[in-house]
Amino acid sequence: MAHIKLMNEQLPGIVCLFNFRPATAKPLCELAEVLLRGPSTLSSGEREVIASYVSWKNDCHFCHTSHGASASHHLGTGLSLIDDIKKDFKETNVSPKLRALLNIAAKVQKSGKSVLPEDIAKAKEQGATDLEIHDTVLIAAAFCMYNRYVDGLGTWAPKEKEAYDEMGYKLAHEGYLQPEEV
Amino acid sequence: MAHIKLMNEQLPGIVCLFNFRPATAKPLCELAEVLLRGPSTLSSGEREVIASYVSWKNDCHFCHTSHGASASHHLGTGLSLIDDIKKDFKETNVSPKLRALLNIAAKVQKSGKSVLPEDIAKAKEQGATDLEIHDTVLIAAAFCMYNRYVDGLGTWAPKEKEAYDEMGYKLAHEGYLQPEEV
Repeated sequence: MAHIKLMNEQLPGIVCLFNFRPATAKPLCELAEVLLRGPSTLSSGEREVIASYVSWKNDCHFCHTSHGASASHHLGTGLSLIDDIKKDFKETNVSPKLRALLNIAAKVQKSGKSVLPEDIAKAKEQGATDLEIHDTVLIAAAFCMYNRYVDGLGTWAPKEKEAYDEMGYKLAHEGYLQPEEV
Repeated sequence: MAHIKLMNEQLPGIVCLFNFRPATAKPLCELAEVLLRGPSTLSSGEREVIASYVSWKNDCHFCHTSHGASASHHLGTGLSLIDDIKKDFKETNVSPKLRALLNIAAKVQKSGKSVLPEDIAKAKEQGATDLEIHDTVLIAAAFCMYNRYVDGLGTWAPKEKEAYDEMGYKLAHEGYLQPEEV
């Protein structure tokens, strides 16, 4: 049960928190929209994979599964991608550049200072730009926030990945902005 | 030296990142403004103390010191507050409610799932409301993001706390919104 009074039975994970506090929901949704769906040389599928991967490392089931489902809709992989993210992409074709960026994201998940010049150099060798490195660090950092927000307030979310398919479709095709902001 | 090309010599810490990427700066600044200076039954001083405390636990010198300086201006303590935060508030008068909220913030810094029902119960016993608990969790989670953003891109910031006095004054009195948003 959630730690505070929320409409969590009707609204899983972060959705009930957005409902509880609209003033903070607004910038939180705008940040997700620009990071995951705004103009970028990284595809939305790649950025959702980074988000889902960091969320898995933070043991946040809701964010890992919902953003994994969104990535699967962007990339056309089916929901098996969610399980493969847990296995460090053993079965998914991940480009050398994305793999170098995922390495940076995993470092950020531990701490900012874990990112070393050699991690950055490896990503640059694979063609990553400064802006792509910036966005990777900020996506990873932002999910260290969203994950703690969702689990720090003890919210409930469905267990089975199949329950996230429709949500993943909507996140991929309609995005993160609240209805009044669209 | 920062990991990517930034105007970091002129703009310390997160400021050069806001300059590098205005599209993400906007929601990041709006989130800080509503969390730390928006309407709340927690004072801005209390909220800045939570932000500085979490940043210290994340070993982020820029955020710890700048938000500690802001807290010192809100609370009228002088910059010695920054050193006292490092010592778990041995010398500062911290109310039992704020101490219970700082305990929750410290749990969030570790992981969302570290927050236990007894941590919430202790805060409620000291009079904390659901909204105060929500905001404490989100402030702590948000600084787990800002801290990783600042250090994950290797930004430089001044070492001595005295260099943060003017910044702390401005954050306390003028806030976080970019000039065009005010």
